[in-house]
Amino acid sequence: MHDAIGIFDSGIGGLTVLRALKETLPDEKTIYLGDTARVPYGTRSPETVVRYSVQAAAFMAEKQVKLLVVACNTASAVALDAMRSACPGDSFPLIGVIEPGVREALRLTRTRRVGVIGTEATIRSQAYTRALKALDPDIQVFTKACPLFVPLAEEGWEETEVAALVAREYLSGFGDLGVDTLIPGCTHYPVIRKVIEGTVGEGISLVDSAKATAINVREVLKERGLIKPAKASGSEERGDRFYVTDAHERFVKVGSRFLGRDMAGVITVEL
Amino acid sequence: MHDAIGIFDSGIGGLTVLRALKETLPDEKTIYLGDTARVPYGTRSPETVVRYSVQAAAFMAEKQVKLLVVACNTASAVALDAMRSACPGDSFPLIGVIEPGVREALRLTRTRRVGVIGTEATIRSQAYTRALKALDPDIQVFTKACPLFVPLAEEGWEETEVAALVAREYLSGFGDLGVDTLIPGCTHYPVIRKVIEGTVGEGISLVDSAKATAINVREVLKERGLIKPAKASGSEERGDRFYVTDAHERFVKVGSRFLGRDMAGVITVEL
Repeated sequence: MHDAIGIFDSGIGGLTVLRALKETLPDEKTIYLGDTARVPYGTRSPETVVRYSVQAAAFMAEKQVKLLVVACNTASAVALDAMRSACPGDSFPLIGVIEPGVREALRLTRTRRVGVIGTEATIRSQAYTRALKALDPDIQVFTKACPLFVPLAEEGWEETEVAALVAREYLSGFGDLGVDTLIPGCTHYPVIRKVIEGTVGEGISLVDSAKATAINVREVLKERGLIKPAKASGSEERGDRFYVTDAHERFVKVGSRFLGRDMAGVITVEL
Repeated sequence: MHDAIGIFDSGIGGLTVLRALKETLPDEKTIYLGDTARVPYGTRSPETVVRYSVQAAAFMAEKQVKLLVVACNTASAVALDAMRSACPGDSFPLIGVIEPGVREALRLTRTRRVGVIGTEATIRSQAYTRALKALDPDIQVFTKACPLFVPLAEEGWEETEVAALVAREYLSGFGDLGVDTLIPGCTHYPVIRKVIEGTVGEGISLVDSAKATAINVREVLKERGLIKPAKASGSEERGDRFYVTDAHERFVKVGSRFLGRDMAGVITVEL
Protein backbone atom coordinates (compact mmCIF):
# COMPACT_ATOMS: atom_id res chain seq x y z
CA MET A 1 0.00 0.00 0.00
CA HIS A 2 3.03 2.35 -0.14
CA ASP A 3 1.72 3.97 -3.31
CA ALA A 4 -1.43 5.27 -1.60
CA ILE A 5 -2.50 8.85 -0.90
CA GLY A 6 -3.09 9.51 2.81
CA ILE A 7 -6.00 11.64 4.00
CA PHE A 8 -5.99 12.71 7.62
CA ASP A 9 -8.87 14.37 9.41
CA SER A 10 -9.94 14.81 13.01
CA GLY A 11 -13.10 12.85 12.25
CA ILE A 12 -15.68 12.30 9.55
CA GLY A 13 -15.61 15.58 7.62
CA GLY A 14 -12.51 14.72 5.61
CA LEU A 15 -14.54 12.09 3.76
CA THR A 16 -15.89 14.93 1.58
CA VAL A 17 -12.28 15.59 0.56
CA LEU A 18 -11.71 11.89 -0.11
CA ARG A 19 -14.84 11.91 -2.27
CA ALA A 20 -13.55 14.83 -4.36
CA LEU A 21 -10.16 13.16 -4.58
CA LYS A 22 -11.64 9.95 -5.95
CA GLU A 23 -13.65 11.92 -8.50
CA THR A 24 -10.47 13.67 -9.69
CA LEU A 25 -8.12 10.70 -9.37
CA PRO A 26 -10.30 7.57 -9.51
CA ASP A 27 -7.40 5.16 -9.93
CA GLU A 28 -5.41 6.19 -6.87
CA LYS A 29 -5.41 4.10 -3.70
CA THR A 30 -6.15 5.95 -0.49
CA ILE A 31 -5.66 5.56 3.25
CA TYR A 32 -8.05 7.58 5.38
CA LEU A 33 -7.38 8.26 9.06
CA GLY A 34 -10.10 9.86 11.22
CA ASP A 35 -9.03 10.64 14.79
CA THR A 36 -12.56 9.97 16.03
CA ALA A 37 -11.37 9.33 19.60
CA ARG A 38 -10.27 12.94 19.92
CA VAL A 39 -12.57 14.81 17.55
CA PRO A 40 -13.27 17.78 17.46
CA TYR A 41 -9.86 19.43 17.17
CA GLY A 42 -11.46 22.86 16.77
CA THR A 43 -12.00 23.44 20.49
CA ARG A 44 -8.54 22.16 21.54
CA SER A 45 -5.49 24.32 22.21
CA PRO A 46 -2.93 24.69 19.37
CA GLU A 47 -0.33 22.66 21.34
CA THR A 48 -2.76 19.75 21.62
CA VAL A 49 -3.72 19.92 17.93
CA VAL A 50 -0.04 19.88 16.97
CA ARG A 51 0.62 16.85 19.20
CA TYR A 52 -2.29 14.88 17.73
CA SER A 53 -1.48 15.87 14.15
CA VAL A 54 2.18 14.86 14.44
CA GLN A 55 1.02 11.44 15.68
CA ALA A 56 -1.19 11.18 12.60
CA ALA A 57 1.72 12.11 10.33
CA ALA A 58 3.82 9.39 11.95
CA PHE A 59 1.01 6.89 11.31
CA MET A 60 0.93 7.89 7.64
CA ALA A 61 4.75 7.73 7.38
CA GLU A 62 4.57 4.18 8.68
CA LYS A 63 2.00 3.36 5.99
CA GLN A 64 4.46 4.84 3.47
CA VAL A 65 1.94 7.09 1.74
CA LYS A 66 3.24 8.99 -1.27
CA LEU A 67 1.40 12.19 -0.35
CA LEU A 68 -0.62 13.29 2.68
CA VAL A 69 -3.72 15.48 2.50
CA VAL A 70 -4.43 17.22 5.79
CA ALA A 71 -8.19 17.50 5.36
CA CYS A 72 -8.83 18.97 8.80
CA ASN A 73 -9.02 22.78 8.71
CA THR A 74 -7.79 23.14 12.28
CA ALA A 75 -4.78 20.89 11.68
CA SER A 76 -4.09 22.65 8.36
CA ALA A 77 -4.19 25.99 10.16
CA VAL A 78 -1.93 25.22 13.11
CA ALA A 79 -0.04 21.96 12.58
CA LEU A 80 1.11 21.73 8.95
CA ASP A 81 4.67 22.97 9.59
CA ALA A 82 5.08 20.79 12.67
CA MET A 83 3.88 17.76 10.71
CA ARG A 84 6.38 18.52 7.93
CA SER A 85 9.21 18.82 10.45
CA ALA A 86 8.20 15.56 12.09
CA CYS A 87 8.33 13.58 8.85
CA PRO A 88 11.82 12.26 8.17
CA GLY A 89 13.53 13.94 5.23
CA ASP A 90 11.46 14.91 2.22
CA SER A 91 9.55 11.67 2.60
CA PHE A 92 6.20 12.77 1.18
CA PRO A 93 4.53 16.10 0.35
CA LEU A 94 1.82 17.43 2.69
CA ILE A 95 -1.12 19.39 1.33
CA GLY A 96 -3.56 21.23 3.58
CA VAL A 97 -7.09 22.30 2.64
CA ILE A 98 -6.69 26.01 3.34
CA GLU A 99 -4.32 27.12 0.59
CA PRO A 100 -6.11 25.43 -2.34
CA GLY A 101 -9.41 27.01 -1.21
CA VAL A 102 -7.77 30.40 -0.81
CA ARG A 103 -6.20 30.29 -4.31
CA GLU A 104 -9.56 29.36 -5.82
CA ALA A 105 -11.28 32.25 -3.99
CA LEU A 106 -8.69 34.73 -5.30
CA ARG A 107 -9.22 33.40 -8.81
CA LEU A 108 -13.00 33.84 -8.52
CA THR A 109 -13.43 37.20 -6.79
CA ARG A 110 -14.01 40.39 -8.78
CA THR A 111 -14.93 42.72 -5.92
CA ARG A 112 -11.81 41.62 -3.93
CA ARG A 113 -14.14 41.07 -1.00
CA VAL A 114 -14.15 37.47 0.20
CA GLY A 115 -16.24 35.82 2.92
CA VAL A 116 -15.05 32.89 5.03
CA ILE A 117 -17.24 30.62 7.14
CA GLY A 118 -16.06 27.82 9.42
CA THR A 119 -16.07 26.45 12.93
CA GLU A 120 -15.48 28.77 15.87
CA ALA A 121 -11.84 27.66 16.12
CA THR A 122 -11.04 28.02 12.42
CA ILE A 123 -12.48 31.53 12.34
CA ARG A 124 -10.79 32.53 15.61
CA SER A 125 -7.44 31.25 14.27
CA GLN A 126 -7.69 33.74 11.36
CA ALA A 127 -5.85 31.17 9.25
CA TYR A 128 -7.90 31.97 6.13
CA THR A 129 -7.51 35.72 6.56
CA ARG A 130 -3.75 35.35 6.88
CA ALA A 131 -3.53 33.00 3.89
CA LEU A 132 -5.67 35.32 1.72
CA LYS A 133 -3.70 38.43 2.66
CA ALA A 134 -0.38 36.65 2.15
CA LEU A 135 -1.30 36.20 -1.52
CA ASP A 136 -3.17 39.49 -1.96
CA PRO A 137 -2.50 42.11 0.73
CA ASP A 138 -5.36 44.32 -0.50
CA ILE A 139 -8.05 41.68 -0.27
CA GLN A 140 -10.87 42.39 2.18
CA VAL A 141 -11.92 39.42 4.26
CA PHE A 142 -15.16 38.98 6.20
CA THR A 143 -15.47 35.98 8.50
CA LYS A 144 -18.33 34.33 10.35
CA ALA A 145 -18.26 31.30 12.65
CA CYS A 146 -21.16 28.92 11.95
CA PRO A 147 -20.95 26.27 14.68
CA LEU A 148 -24.38 24.74 14.03
CA PHE A 149 -23.60 23.66 10.46
CA VAL A 150 -21.50 20.67 11.60
CA PRO A 151 -24.16 19.09 13.83
CA LEU A 152 -26.83 19.82 11.17
CA ALA A 153 -24.74 17.95 8.59
CA GLU A 154 -24.08 15.04 10.96
CA GLU A 155 -27.78 14.86 11.88
CA GLY A 156 -28.69 14.61 8.18
CA TRP A 157 -30.86 17.71 8.41
CA GLU A 158 -29.27 19.48 5.45
CA GLU A 159 -32.53 19.91 3.57
CA THR A 160 -34.82 20.93 6.42
CA GLU A 161 -36.49 24.20 7.36
CA VAL A 162 -34.14 24.32 10.37
CA ALA A 163 -31.08 24.28 8.10
CA ALA A 164 -32.55 27.07 5.95
CA LEU A 165 -33.29 29.18 9.02
CA VAL A 166 -29.82 28.62 10.53
CA ALA A 167 -28.20 29.46 7.17
CA ARG A 168 -30.21 32.70 6.92
CA GLU A 169 -29.16 33.62 10.46
CA TYR A 170 -25.46 33.06 9.72
CA LEU A 171 -25.15 34.19 6.12
CA SER A 172 -27.57 37.02 5.41
CA GLY A 173 -24.98 39.66 6.29
CA PHE A 174 -22.53 38.76 3.51
CA GLY A 175 -24.56 40.23 0.63
CA ASP A 176 -24.60 43.76 2.12
CA LEU A 177 -20.83 43.66 2.51
CA GLY A 178 -20.17 43.44 -1.22
CA VAL A 179 -18.73 39.95 -0.84
CA ASP A 180 -18.85 38.03 -4.15
CA THR A 181 -16.96 34.88 -3.12
CA LEU A 182 -17.46 32.68 -0.08
CA ILE A 183 -15.06 30.03 1.23
CA PRO A 184 -16.80 27.22 3.15
CA GLY A 185 -13.84 26.65 5.47
CA CYS A 186 -14.92 23.36 7.01
CA THR A 187 -14.88 19.87 5.54
CA HIS A 188 -18.44 19.24 6.73
CA TYR A 189 -19.87 22.03 4.61
CA PRO A 190 -20.05 20.23 1.23
CA VAL A 191 -22.86 18.20 2.84
CA ILE A 192 -24.93 21.37 3.40
CA ARG A 193 -23.66 23.14 0.28
CA LYS A 194 -27.10 23.35 -1.32
CA VAL A 195 -28.67 25.33 1.53
CA ILE A 196 -25.63 27.63 1.72
CA GLU A 197 -25.88 28.31 -2.02
CA GLY A 198 -29.62 28.84 -1.81
CA THR A 199 -29.20 31.34 1.03
CA VAL A 200 -26.40 33.50 -0.36
CA GLY A 201 -27.99 33.57 -3.83
CA GLU A 202 -26.44 33.83 -7.28
CA GLY A 203 -24.42 36.97 -6.56
CA ILE A 204 -21.94 35.04 -4.40
CA SER A 205 -19.75 32.22 -5.76
CA LEU A 206 -19.09 29.35 -3.42
CA VAL A 207 -15.56 27.95 -3.45
CA ASP A 208 -15.30 24.16 -3.63
CA SER A 209 -12.28 23.62 -1.35
CA ALA A 210 -12.46 19.83 -1.58
CA LYS A 211 -12.28 19.94 -5.37
CA ALA A 212 -9.56 22.62 -5.32
CA THR A 213 -7.54 20.43 -2.95
CA ALA A 214 -8.03 17.38 -5.17
CA ILE A 215 -6.80 19.33 -8.21
CA ASN A 216 -3.80 20.52 -6.20
CA VAL A 217 -3.03 16.91 -5.27
CA ARG A 218 -3.15 15.90 -8.93
CA GLU A 219 -0.74 18.70 -9.87
CA VAL A 220 1.77 17.77 -7.18
CA LEU A 221 1.63 14.07 -8.08
CA LYS A 222 2.16 14.93 -11.75
CA GLU A 223 5.10 17.22 -10.98
CA ARG A 224 6.79 14.47 -9.00
CA GLY A 225 5.95 11.72 -11.45
CA LEU A 226 3.93 9.92 -8.81
CA ILE A 227 0.59 9.72 -10.55
CA LYS A 228 -0.84 6.26 -10.97
CA PRO A 229 -1.52 5.03 -14.50
CA ALA A 230 -5.18 4.29 -15.25
CA LYS A 231 -6.21 0.81 -14.29
CA ALA A 232 -7.05 -1.83 -16.84
CA SER A 233 -10.79 -1.74 -17.43
CA GLY A 234 -12.77 -4.29 -15.55
CA SER A 235 -10.75 -3.89 -12.38
CA GLU A 236 -13.14 -3.38 -9.50
CA GLU A 237 -10.69 -3.11 -6.65
CA ARG A 238 -11.15 0.30 -5.07
CA GLY A 239 -8.09 0.25 -2.83
CA ASP A 240 -9.44 2.59 -0.15
CA ARG A 241 -8.65 1.86 3.47
CA PHE A 242 -10.24 3.49 6.48
CA TYR A 243 -8.75 3.82 9.96
CA VAL A 244 -10.41 5.46 12.97
CA THR A 245 -9.26 5.82 16.56
CA ASP A 246 -12.67 5.07 18.12
CA ALA A 247 -16.36 4.32 17.60
CA HIS A 248 -16.25 3.04 14.07
CA GLU A 249 -19.98 2.19 13.85
CA ARG A 250 -20.92 5.87 13.98
CA PHE A 251 -18.15 6.67 11.50
CA VAL A 252 -19.57 4.18 9.02
CA LYS A 253 -23.16 5.32 9.54
CA VAL A 254 -22.66 9.08 9.21
CA GLY A 255 -19.61 8.79 6.97
CA SER A 256 -21.34 6.85 4.22
CA ARG A 257 -23.55 9.88 3.59
CA PHE A 258 -20.49 12.15 3.48
CA LEU A 259 -18.61 9.83 1.14
CA GLY A 260 -21.60 9.08 -1.05
CA ARG A 261 -21.12 5.33 -0.81
CA ASP A 262 -20.78 2.54 1.74
CA MET A 263 -17.51 1.85 3.51
CA ALA A 264 -16.22 -1.63 4.19
CA GLY A 265 -13.59 -2.86 6.63
CA VAL A 266 -13.05 0.19 8.83
CA ILE A 267 -10.21 -0.57 11.25
CA THR A 268 -9.80 0.91 14.74
CA VAL A 269 -6.23 1.88 15.66
CA GLU A 270 -4.44 3.70 18.47
CA LEU A 271 -2.19 6.63 17.62
CA MET B 1 -9.70 21.25 50.26
CA HIS B 2 -10.36 17.64 51.40
CA ASP B 3 -13.85 18.58 52.55
CA ALA B 4 -14.98 19.55 49.06
CA ILE B 5 -17.59 17.93 46.83
CA GLY B 6 -16.17 16.83 43.49
CA ILE B 7 -18.14 17.28 40.27
CA PHE B 8 -16.85 15.51 37.18
CA ASP B 9 -18.12 16.06 33.66
CA SER B 10 -16.76 15.47 30.17
CA GLY B 11 -16.96 19.21 29.54
CA ILE B 12 -19.06 22.25 30.27
CA GLY B 13 -22.53 20.77 30.79
CA GLY B 14 -21.90 19.67 34.37
CA LEU B 15 -21.79 23.31 35.41
CA THR B 16 -25.62 23.22 35.42
CA VAL B 17 -25.33 20.48 38.07
CA LEU B 18 -22.81 22.55 40.03
CA ARG B 19 -25.23 25.48 39.87
CA ALA B 20 -28.08 23.38 41.32
CA LEU B 21 -25.70 21.99 43.94
CA LYS B 22 -24.69 25.46 45.11
CA GLU B 23 -28.37 26.48 45.30
CA THR B 24 -29.13 23.46 47.48
CA LEU B 25 -25.88 23.46 49.50
CA PRO B 26 -24.50 27.02 49.32
CA ASP B 27 -21.89 26.50 52.03
CA GLU B 28 -20.14 23.50 50.51
CA LYS B 29 -16.81 23.82 48.74
CA THR B 30 -16.60 22.23 45.31
CA ILE B 31 -14.00 20.98 42.86
CA TYR B 32 -15.15 20.84 39.25
CA LEU B 33 -13.30 18.81 36.63
CA GLY B 34 -14.25 19.15 32.95
CA ASP B 35 -12.38 16.83 30.61
CA THR B 36 -12.49 19.43 27.83
CA ALA B 37 -9.54 17.87 25.99
CA ARG B 38 -11.58 14.76 25.31
CA VAL B 39 -15.18 15.99 25.22
CA PRO B 40 -17.62 14.72 23.98
CA TYR B 41 -17.73 11.31 25.64
CA GLY B 42 -21.06 10.51 23.98
CA THR B 43 -19.55 9.43 20.68
CA ARG B 44 -16.71 7.36 22.24
CA SER B 45 -16.77 3.61 22.82
CA PRO B 46 -17.72 2.38 26.34
CA GLU B 47 -14.15 1.14 26.94
CA THR B 48 -12.76 4.59 26.24
CA VAL B 49 -15.35 6.31 28.44
CA VAL B 50 -14.50 3.93 31.28
CA ARG B 51 -10.77 4.62 30.91
CA TYR B 52 -11.25 8.41 30.94
CA SER B 53 -13.72 8.31 33.84
CA VAL B 54 -11.46 6.15 36.00
CA GLN B 55 -8.69 8.72 35.45
CA ALA B 56 -11.08 11.44 36.61
CA ALA B 57 -11.98 9.43 39.71
CA ALA B 58 -8.27 9.07 40.52
CA PHE B 59 -7.86 12.85 40.15
CA MET B 60 -10.71 13.41 42.59
CA ALA B 61 -9.33 10.82 45.03
CA GLU B 62 -6.06 12.72 45.02
CA LYS B 63 -7.97 15.90 45.81
CA GLN B 64 -9.56 13.98 48.72
CA VAL B 65 -13.13 14.96 47.90
CA LYS B 66 -15.75 13.77 50.37
CA LEU B 67 -18.26 12.87 47.64
CA LEU B 68 -18.08 12.73 43.84
CA VAL B 69 -20.94 13.71 41.55
CA VAL B 70 -20.59 12.17 38.09
CA ALA B 71 -22.43 14.88 36.18
CA CYS B 72 -21.80 13.40 32.74
CA ASN B 73 -24.69 11.23 31.57
CA THR B 74 -22.46 9.02 29.43
CA ALA B 75 -20.03 8.39 32.29
CA SER B 76 -22.95 7.82 34.68
CA ALA B 77 -24.39 5.29 32.25
CA VAL B 78 -21.31 3.22 31.51
CA ALA B 79 -18.53 3.98 34.00
CA LEU B 80 -20.00 4.39 37.50
CA ASP B 81 -19.21 0.85 38.67
CA ALA B 82 -15.69 0.95 37.23
CA MET B 83 -15.05 4.27 38.94
CA ARG B 84 -16.26 2.84 42.27
CA SER B 85 -14.00 -0.20 41.87
CA ALA B 86 -11.06 2.04 41.04
CA CYS B 87 -11.42 4.16 44.18
CA PRO B 88 -9.54 2.60 47.09
CA GLY B 89 -11.80 1.23 49.82
CA ASP B 90 -14.98 3.08 50.64
CA SER B 91 -13.14 6.34 50.21
CA PHE B 92 -16.00 8.53 49.04
CA PRO B 93 -19.52 7.98 47.72
CA LEU B 94 -20.18 8.42 43.98
CA ILE B 95 -23.48 9.79 42.73
CA GLY B 96 -24.46 9.75 39.06
CA VAL B 97 -27.09 11.95 37.44
CA ILE B 98 -29.24 9.19 36.01
CA GLU B 99 -30.73 7.61 39.12
CA PRO B 100 -31.85 10.85 40.83
CA GLY B 101 -33.60 11.93 37.61
CA VAL B 102 -35.23 8.55 37.22
CA ARG B 103 -36.55 8.52 40.81
CA GLU B 104 -38.00 12.00 40.32
CA ALA B 105 -39.70 10.92 37.07
CA LEU B 106 -41.28 7.91 38.77
CA ARG B 107 -42.53 10.18 41.56
CA LEU B 108 -44.12 12.57 39.05
CA THR B 109 -45.73 10.31 36.46
CA ARG B 110 -49.40 9.38 36.67
CA THR B 111 -49.81 7.75 33.25
CA ARG B 112 -46.70 5.57 33.87
CA ARG B 113 -45.51 6.70 30.45
CA VAL B 114 -42.20 8.55 30.64
CA GLY B 115 -40.22 10.23 27.87
CA VAL B 116 -36.43 10.53 27.84
CA ILE B 117 -34.39 12.88 25.66
CA GLY B 118 -30.60 13.04 25.46
CA THR B 119 -27.59 12.82 23.19
CA GLU B 120 -27.37 10.07 20.60
CA ALA B 121 -25.04 8.03 22.82
CA THR B 122 -27.15 8.36 26.00
CA ILE B 123 -30.28 7.28 24.16
CA ARG B 124 -28.51 4.44 22.36
CA SER B 125 -27.09 3.19 25.67
CA GLN B 126 -30.67 2.72 26.99
CA ALA B 127 -29.32 3.61 30.42
CA TYR B 128 -32.46 5.56 31.38
CA THR B 129 -34.79 2.85 30.12
CA ARG B 130 -32.94 0.22 32.16
CA ALA B 131 -32.85 2.42 35.28
CA LEU B 132 -36.58 3.23 35.00
CA LYS B 133 -37.58 -0.41 34.47
CA ALA B 134 -35.33 -1.59 37.31
CA LEU B 135 -37.44 0.49 39.70
CA ASP B 136 -40.80 -0.05 37.98
CA PRO B 137 -40.89 -2.96 35.51
CA ASP B 138 -44.29 -1.87 34.13
CA ILE B 139 -43.25 1.66 33.22
CA GLN B 140 -43.43 2.53 29.52
CA VAL B 141 -40.45 4.49 28.23
CA PHE B 142 -40.25 6.52 25.03
CA THR B 143 -36.85 7.91 24.02
CA LYS B 144 -35.65 10.43 21.47
CA ALA B 145 -32.10 11.53 20.68
CA CYS B 146 -31.85 15.32 20.27
CA PRO B 147 -28.27 15.96 19.11
CA LEU B 148 -28.81 19.60 18.10
CA PHE B 149 -29.78 20.76 21.60
CA VAL B 150 -26.17 20.73 22.84
CA PRO B 151 -24.73 22.98 20.09
CA LEU B 152 -27.78 25.26 20.37
CA ALA B 153 -27.12 25.69 24.10
CA GLU B 154 -23.40 26.26 23.55
CA GLU B 155 -24.13 28.78 20.78
CA GLY B 156 -26.39 30.75 23.14
CA TRP B 157 -29.35 30.33 20.80
CA GLU B 158 -31.73 28.99 23.44
CA GLU B 159 -34.34 31.67 22.85
CA THR B 160 -34.29 31.83 19.06
CA GLU B 161 -36.78 30.76 16.40
CA VAL B 162 -34.26 28.07 15.41
CA ALA B 163 -34.38 26.56 18.92
CA ALA B 164 -38.20 26.57 18.86
CA LEU B 165 -38.24 24.88 15.45
CA VAL B 166 -35.68 22.25 16.47
CA ALA B 167 -37.60 21.56 19.69
CA ARG B 168 -40.86 21.10 17.76
CA GLU B 169 -39.12 18.72 15.37
CA TYR B 170 -37.74 16.59 18.23
CA LEU B 171 -40.52 16.76 20.81
CA SER B 172 -43.89 17.01 19.09
CA GLY B 173 -44.34 13.24 19.11
CA PHE B 174 -44.38 12.85 22.90
CA GLY B 175 -47.85 14.31 23.48
CA ASP B 176 -49.59 11.72 21.27
CA LEU B 177 -47.87 8.92 23.16
CA GLY B 178 -49.60 9.72 26.46
CA VAL B 179 -46.31 10.69 28.05
CA ASP B 180 -46.87 12.95 31.08
CA THR B 181 -43.26 13.20 32.34
CA LEU B 182 -40.10 13.97 30.40
CA ILE B 183 -36.51 13.46 31.58
CA PRO B 184 -34.02 15.85 29.98
CA GLY B 185 -31.16 13.35 30.10
CA CYS B 186 -28.29 15.69 29.31
CA THR B 187 -26.57 18.24 31.51
CA HIS B 188 -26.77 20.86 28.75
CA TYR B 189 -30.55 20.83 28.69
CA PRO B 190 -31.23 23.11 31.70
CA VAL B 191 -29.90 25.91 29.48
CA ILE B 192 -32.65 25.31 26.91
CA ARG B 193 -35.27 24.23 29.47
CA LYS B 194 -37.63 27.09 28.64
CA VAL B 195 -38.02 26.17 24.98
CA ILE B 196 -38.44 22.47 25.87
CA GLU B 197 -41.18 23.37 28.36
CA GLY B 198 -42.84 25.73 25.90
CA THR B 199 -42.88 23.02 23.23
CA VAL B 200 -44.21 20.08 25.24
CA GLY B 201 -46.82 22.25 26.95
CA GLU B 202 -48.40 22.02 30.37
CA GLY B 203 -49.54 18.41 30.04
CA ILE B 204 -45.98 17.12 30.42
CA SER B 205 -43.87 17.66 33.56
CA LEU B 206 -40.20 18.23 33.04
CA VAL B 207 -37.86 16.51 35.50
CA ASP B 208 -35.11 18.70 36.94
CA SER B 209 -32.29 16.14 37.10
CA ALA B 210 -29.71 18.65 38.32
CA LYS B 211 -31.90 19.61 41.28
CA ALA B 212 -32.81 15.98 41.99
CA THR B 213 -29.11 15.13 42.00
CA ALA B 214 -28.32 18.03 44.34
CA ILE B 215 -31.03 16.87 46.77
CA ASN B 216 -29.63 13.33 46.61
CA VAL B 217 -26.17 14.68 47.42
CA ARG B 218 -27.58 16.52 50.45
CA GLU B 219 -29.26 13.32 51.67
CA VAL B 220 -26.09 11.25 51.35
CA LEU B 221 -23.96 13.88 53.08
CA LYS B 222 -26.51 14.09 55.92
CA GLU B 223 -26.63 10.31 56.33
CA ARG B 224 -22.86 10.17 56.61
CA GLY B 225 -22.57 13.20 58.85
CA LEU B 226 -20.49 14.99 56.23
CA ILE B 227 -22.59 18.07 55.69
CA LYS B 228 -20.84 21.37 56.24
CA PRO B 229 -22.23 23.67 58.92
CA ALA B 230 -23.50 27.03 57.63
CA LYS B 231 -20.77 29.63 57.36
CA ALA B 232 -20.63 32.63 59.65
CA SER B 233 -22.44 35.46 57.94
CA GLY B 234 -20.17 37.90 56.17
CA SER B 235 -17.95 35.20 54.73
CA GLU B 236 -17.60 35.80 51.02
CA GLU B 237 -15.26 32.97 50.14
CA ARG B 238 -16.99 30.76 47.64
CA GLY B 239 -14.52 27.88 47.70
CA ASP B 240 -15.19 26.62 44.18
CA ARG B 241 -12.28 25.37 42.11
CA PHE B 242 -12.36 24.62 38.40
CA TYR B 243 -10.06 22.27 36.51
CA VAL B 244 -10.14 21.55 32.78
CA THR B 245 -7.94 19.39 30.59
CA ASP B 246 -7.75 21.87 27.68
CA ALA B 247 -8.89 25.18 26.17
CA HIS B 248 -9.93 26.97 29.32
CA GLU B 249 -10.84 30.28 27.59
CA ARG B 250 -13.78 28.66 25.84
CA PHE B 251 -14.76 26.90 29.08
CA VAL B 252 -14.89 30.22 30.90
CA LYS B 253 -16.78 31.98 28.10
CA VAL B 254 -19.51 29.41 27.50
CA GLY B 255 -19.43 28.05 31.05
CA SER B 256 -20.26 31.33 32.75
CA ARG B 257 -23.66 31.28 31.03
CA PHE B 258 -24.21 27.69 32.17
CA LEU B 259 -23.16 28.45 35.73
CA GLY B 260 -25.00 31.76 35.92
CA ARG B 261 -21.94 33.66 37.16
CA ASP B 262 -18.32 34.32 36.25
CA MET B 263 -15.58 31.82 36.99
CA ALA B 264 -12.17 32.81 38.26
CA GLY B 265 -8.92 30.90 38.28
CA VAL B 266 -9.66 27.97 36.01
CA ILE B 267 -6.66 25.61 36.04
CA THR B 268 -5.59 23.36 33.16
CA VAL B 269 -4.43 19.87 34.21
CA GLU B 270 -3.50 16.59 32.55
CA LEU B 271 -5.26 13.41 33.60
